[in-house]
Amino acid sequence: MAKKRKALQSKKSGAAKARPSAELQAVIDDLVIGNRVLYAQDVVDGYGHISARHPHHPDRFLMSRARAPGLVVAADIMEFGLDGELIAADERPIYSERFIHSEVYKARPDVNAVVHSHSPTVVPFSVTQVPLRPIRASFFYPEVPVFDTRAAAGWTNLLISNSALGQALARTLGQNSVALLRGHGNVVVAPNVRMVVYRAIYTEANAKLLLQAKMLGGPITYLAPEEAALMEKSQGRHRPGHGSDRTWEMWKQEALARTGKLR
Amino acid sequence: MAKKRKALQSKKSGAAKARPSAELQAVIDDLVIGNRVLYAQDVVDGYGHISARHPHHPDRFLMSRARAPGLVVAADIMEFGLDGELIAADERPIYSERFIHSEVYKARPDVNAVVHSHSPTVVPFSVTQVPLRPIRASFFYPEVPVFDTRAAAGWTNLLISNSALGQALARTLGQNSVALLRGHGNVVVAPNVRMVVYRAIYTEANAKLLLQAKMLGGPITYLAPEEAALMEKSQGRHRPGHGSDRTWEMWKQEALARTGKLR
Amino acid sequence: MAKKRKALQSKKSGAAKARPSAELQAVIDDLVIGNRVLYAQDVVDGYGHISARHPHHPDRFLMSRARAPGLVVAADIMEFGLDGELIAADERPIYSERFIHSEVYKARPDVNAVVHSHSPTVVPFSVTQVPLRPIRASFFYPEVPVFDTRAAAGWTNLLISNSALGQALARTLGQNSVALLRGHGNVVVAPNVRMVVYRAIYTEANAKLLLQAKMLGGPITYLAPEEAALMEKSQGRHRPGHGSDRTWEMWKQEALARTGKLR
Amino acid sequence: MAKKRKALQSKKSGAAKARPSAELQAVIDDLVIGNRVLYAQDVVDGYGHISARHPHHPDRFLMSRARAPGLVVAADIMEFGLDGELIAADERPIYSERFIHSEVYKARPDVNAVVHSHSPTVVPFSVTQVPLRPIRASFFYPEVPVFDTRAAAGWTNLLISNSALGQALARTLGQNSVALLRGHGNVVVAPNVRMVVYRAIYTEANAKLLLQAKMLGGPITYLAPEEAALMEKSQGRHRPGHGSDRTWEMWKQEALARTGKLR
Repeated sequence: MAKKRKALQSKKSGAAKARPSAELQAVIDDLVIGNRVLYAQDVVDGYGHISARHPHHPDRFLMSRARAPGLVVAADIMEFGLDGELIAADERPIYSERFIHSEVYKARPDVNAVVHSHSPTVVPFSVTQVPLRPIRASFFYPEVPVFDTRAAAGWTNLLISNSALGQALARTLGQNSVALLRGHGNVVVAPNVRMVVYRAIYTEANAKLLLQAKMLGGPITYLAPEEAALMEKSQGRHRPGHGSDRTWEMWKQEALARTGKLR
Repeated sequence: MAKKRKALQSKKSGAAKARPSAELQAVIDDLVIGNRVLYAQDVVDGYGHISARHPHHPDRFLMSRARAPGLVVAADIMEFGLDGELIAADERPIYSERFIHSEVYKARPDVNAVVHSHSPTVVPFSVTQVPLRPIRASFFYPEVPVFDTRAAAGWTNLLISNSALGQALARTLGQNSVALLRGHGNVVVAPNVRMVVYRAIYTEANAKLLLQAKMLGGPITYLAPEEAALMEKSQGRHRPGHGSDRTWEMWKQEALARTGKLR
Repeated sequence: MAKKRKALQSKKSGAAKARPSAELQAVIDDLVIGNRVLYAQDVVDGYGHISARHPHHPDRFLMSRARAPGLVVAADIMEFGLDGELIAADERPIYSERFIHSEVYKARPDVNAVVHSHSPTVVPFSVTQVPLRPIRASFFYPEVPVFDTRAAAGWTNLLISNSALGQALARTLGQNSVALLRGHGNVVVAPNVRMVVYRAIYTEANAKLLLQAKMLGGPITYLAPEEAALMEKSQGRHRPGHGSDRTWEMWKQEALARTGKLR
Repeated sequence: MAKKRKALQSKKSGAAKARPSAELQAVIDDLVIGNRVLYAQDVVDGYGHISARHPHHPDRFLMSRARAPGLVVAADIMEFGLDGELIAADERPIYSERFIHSEVYKARPDVNAVVHSHSPTVVPFSVTQVPLRPIRASFFYPEVPVFDTRAAAGWTNLLISNSALGQALARTLGQNSVALLRGHGNVVVAPNVRMVVYRAIYTEANAKLLLQAKMLGGPITYLAPEEAALMEKSQGRHRPGHGSDRTWEMWKQEALARTGKLR
């Protein structure tokens, strides 16, 4: 027992002593800002979370301890394995729904960032028969499937709080960028943190546009798959000052104004 | 007469001199923050109020003097008996609708906190035939009944300004957590202050979700009673960093930023 | 000519020299705060205006020079006669729609404060056939009529920019508290400034409630005239800490936080 | 090659050394404020842009480098020719959709300011068959046409990123003040910066009004062309303290409060 405790302790202090690489620090910083931005942009409320795959260990991911996203700071960021387990011992509470993240990282080697939110205008699409189709959101192709815990596991409290549910959700997500969780929220994935924050924000925005288009009535001209593919190609190429780069600076400034300086 | 005045005075100065227990102080603090949060979250406007059962005297409850919730401070908190009467003499104005609170505390020994609000997206449900059913709000079971002063007492100014109306409302509320007041607002109850604030906020949120789901049209998948029961069980267990604990820190910070420091 | 200029000058400097009575100062202060509050509450945008009948001269009213309500300060307040004329010479621009106010003061001896706004959720009711009926707004009785410049005067730029149009509007308003101006906004009247601000804010709020009730569909339970009459009676009696008194403190604090200190 | 580099360098340093005329400085200042205002008023998000024709060179226009409008400062403003080319060499990123502006300035000698935005309530009108007609927006006449890149150029990423697309858009805009871009946003034009900001804001406002009027159902009374013509005539005459003059002061103050001081 003593040996085990010692091993855990040295792992924890080891992680504390090792200075993060510049790449790791950049991901941690984006993760912290991403939490604040998602809250300031009203995509997450006190719940919801964002994670990033560890840049040096593809079998680990980084996420805050269980805390409201609007309050997350760098010291909150923890490391998890792909079974949802903590890498270093830590007494602070952790998100019960970390399995949303761990199972996506297992199933999707192309994904390096994940958001789970209760995006308010998205939830109505998760409980009706109206598909969430793209007006402007080019990453909605091939589709935005709906995952229902009821179909996957009967009566639950809706939380994706174990690997089995996480795997079922990841199966529903498939190769898509967004999946809805019935009566609950959504999961959004992307190749990096800034892109996943952008996608989470524009998923909510597209839901608003579609709701209003439905209110106007009549036929709706959706984004064509061909158009979406061309838009995704532009977004994919990193061009400083364009795409998610242009908005990050502004979102960060507004988020820190609303939620307070990072300590 | 002189004896009575002296008795009242000594009761008042007695209350002032006795230092609140840690438990009482915690309830008072939550009550003050709760007022500010409900206002900052746009659940109450300049009206509406929140109360808590006295932790040491189950036949008393604590509530601010008549003041806009966004301005309440600790010195505003007064003590009332379950007939809506002031415990200690006080010349400051008191809420005419304190009977919403007093009669609920009489009828519901399980309830220790009550909110009355004019929650904006909830009121339309109180004047139409569309039941306020749960999309995400697990505490909407068994149901959200609608109380109408017209049925209870004919023509009134809609205010629950006496015991008889308070009792009629409490009868309509029954064992539920939320009841609507036609053309007026709602009452929300819970076992403690943080939970009642959480429920008041998520009642408004669920009303928004349901309104939007109705706008999309077609069948709606509501939360099943079985699912709600499991969610309520999780919420019931106090788990630090989870449930209403996670949001309180953030809500408090935002509320104080919007409404000003507590004096 | 020189005599006239001198007379005007002495009237102006006279007005400047005479110290306002406490009653007049109170009205001016409420007018300035009322401007800020209406803007902070999103009832007026950069346009719209609020006036008060002069407490000592019933044939005059007080209103800001032409300025966005969110910026009005005490030095902006001017005096007008009931033909819309300036009492003292002043080179600063004045509202072209001051005739909304002057003609109401002529027609309604019971009215001492008037708001004209482009209240955003109210305008849709002015261009459709759906009457703006009371869900919570007890001052909507007897009714909320719609005034159309087209019916009154054929093709115009919609502005009530002369006495004739002001009189036509006042005739449509009749004994009501609110009238809509088609495709433009509304006029709201009351016995004092704090009440007219309250009514302007709750006209917008009731419009939102009714719009949402319409979206839910089915029959709507409106406030009964009997209930409204009882509510108006309560509002009429000035009770410190209740009615518009309770909200004024909070609205003023928020308005000054948003629009800046009064200079 | 050396000669060319020297020539470019001297052009750049020349532009830097030459002090802007008072008229040019005024346009640059309005452009910077206009960017901030459009963002603070939620007409543009992190994208969108505003430009002004050079007051001394009708074959040039001024616009920020590629940057979120909420962050633009005077040093960001660049000069472009009507083929969308930079006048002075500059390594900072430029808006790929500058051709929206250049081609409008070519086609419309009466236009001196252009806004491109993703105005949120306007986009639903661009993807449905409901024409964006005027409730209050007098500048919507003759009409608000919809431009679709699909019709003009088949499958694209929707960006107006070359002259050909810019010309096609300008042809659709014709002599109108507003045109919608399907599934994307809109372009708004005017004789000066303050007017184009006003129009962009009130295009969004009118879209909201029309959406709500549609939700109420039944016949809608639109602004008549005769009324609009009279309103436009008033707006056209510059009257200090009226029209867009009245709102500019307030919008500027709010925008700087939200987006930060100009450095």
